[in-house]
Amino acid sequence: MKQLIAVIGGDARYLELIRQLQATRHIELILVGYDKLEQGFTGLNQTDFSDLDVENLDIVILPITGTDEEGRVETVFSDQEIQMTEEWFGRLKDKAVVFTGITNHHLTDLTMKTNTTLIPLLDRDDVAIYNSIPTAEGAIMMAIENTDYTIHSSRVIVAGFGRVGNTVANKFAALGARVSVATKNSTDLARISEMGLTPIALNKLPEYTSECDLLINTIPAEVITKDAIQNLPSNAVIIDLASKPGGTDFDYAKQRGIEAILARSLPSIVAPKTAGKILADVIIQILTKEKELLGWI
Amino acid sequence: MKQLIAVIGGDARYLELIRQLQATRHIELILVGYDKLEQGFTGLNQTDFSDLDVENLDIVILPITGTDEEGRVETVFSDQEIQMTEEWFGRLKDKAVVFTGITNHHLTDLTMKTNTTLIPLLDRDDVAIYNSIPTAEGAIMMAIENTDYTIHSSRVIVAGFGRVGNTVANKFAALGARVSVATKNSTDLARISEMGLTPIALNKLPEYTSECDLLINTIPAEVITKDAIQNLPSNAVIIDLASKPGGTDFDYAKQRGIEAILARSLPSIVAPKTAGKILADVIIQILTKEKELLGWI
Repeated sequence: MKQLIAVIGGDARYLELIRQLQATRHIELILVGYDKLEQGFTGLNQTDFSDLDVENLDIVILPITGTDEEGRVETVFSDQEIQMTEEWFGRLKDKAVVFTGITNHHLTDLTMKTNTTLIPLLDRDDVAIYNSIPTAEGAIMMAIENTDYTIHSSRVIVAGFGRVGNTVANKFAALGARVSVATKNSTDLARISEMGLTPIALNKLPEYTSECDLLINTIPAEVITKDAIQNLPSNAVIIDLASKPGGTDFDYAKQRGIEAILARSLPSIVAPKTAGKILADVIIQILTKEKELLGWI
Repeated sequence: MKQLIAVIGGDARYLELIRQLQATRHIELILVGYDKLEQGFTGLNQTDFSDLDVENLDIVILPITGTDEEGRVETVFSDQEIQMTEEWFGRLKDKAVVFTGITNHHLTDLTMKTNTTLIPLLDRDDVAIYNSIPTAEGAIMMAIENTDYTIHSSRVIVAGFGRVGNTVANKFAALGARVSVATKNSTDLARISEMGLTPIALNKLPEYTSECDLLINTIPAEVITKDAIQNLPSNAVIIDLASKPGGTDFDYAKQRGIEAILARSLPSIVAPKTAGKILADVIIQILTKEKELLGWI
């Protein structure tokens, strides 16, 4: 039996997601919020939000950004205003599942109240690791664009060894940079050393920044402090990949004349197609292999 | 005894070259063509071309571009017009040595007639290999900027396995691309296979391009032919790194709507500082260790 999936809103990344779902068997797709798309999809149902046959949907896919605090959904390819309400979620069948990129209090609350299964994809480790690849490539692009030296042979310090920090450290090392990684975690420090990189205890970071051309932060906390920035060479560049507002004292960097860039949403900028495919792959995997997650088993 | 070196003309890359030479012992520098430089060098002699004490120079460093066919020298940081003549070279002492990036008939001729040692640095294998690093990083930047998918997992074919092709293949493989390399040379095909990459006989290239996201040419001959382009997927991108006019049938690529980019002088664009350091390192190495090349032994 076919699963009826409604994709409600989304940006360039969702074009690839839709393409991938379209090529998957046992799925019937309905698109909402793609009416202004120049090169539309052929053979796909498009409808207005108000005309959706909500009671028959098996799966709802919301944008990566989820909803705002009023339940409104971002529609890049449409002028439709779409607002998700408790009443709307209440009309879904019991076993319907809602995918979103990220969630917020409002969306979590709406789905809790209506007993709807909500899966925030970006909370998953696998999605975060796949997404760290375009993020790291974006950081590479920014490093090449914003310095007058090669990544090869340059002295790179990566702050953080989570899902993004690990990938970034790997990629820069693969390009021949001399990579150090700063983290608190002693297990991670051992792993960093095993990888042939230089481990730095995070609280000692300022002692190492005098020998650093590129400082890349991945920690969503104030770790690139005044002390750390003070010791950087004047032509060093800071790339902050942590979610807004980043972990850098941007004011002090500016004061010292050090270029510091807060990079936002690199996967959607450098590789929307790959970013869409990552989400599609995970959704398809969940639909076919992780049915217990959906409450279907 | 100090060697008297005149740097005559040059672009951003020469700022780092001058900085490196300035930090080297037993060298006295004179700059010609840097009078409009905003942040000048302190403690360095600058003079007009006509005021140069030619007879006392040990070394002359011409721009990377050498001279044009009338002997004129490019001066990015000056309005001076500088023209090298047979008479000028004739005034140099017997053991004086002239470095240039590249040479042409005119410059080679002038130095032959005056029995002056001319060293075209970019002809050297070591310089070409060092320069291939910023070239490859430039290609990486262009690939990230011009595609909507990651380099990771993408299907890359590199045409050519010379000094640039080898580095490019290595770097893209290090970033997780699935790299094939097309070349005529059977020894190279063996090496490509040993490196874990896929070897392709160059004359069979068109048979492989249907499975290719990024086609990177490094061969200065017409190898990216209509046949090769015809089979590319429509969203593939061609990056041509071969010297002007490249090796791609750009007209046919345009006709097919395939993006094809002729990349020029990537080291000076993405990493002028590194490019200058490469030249400085080699010049210093020649001055200190390869004196026979200078005719000084």
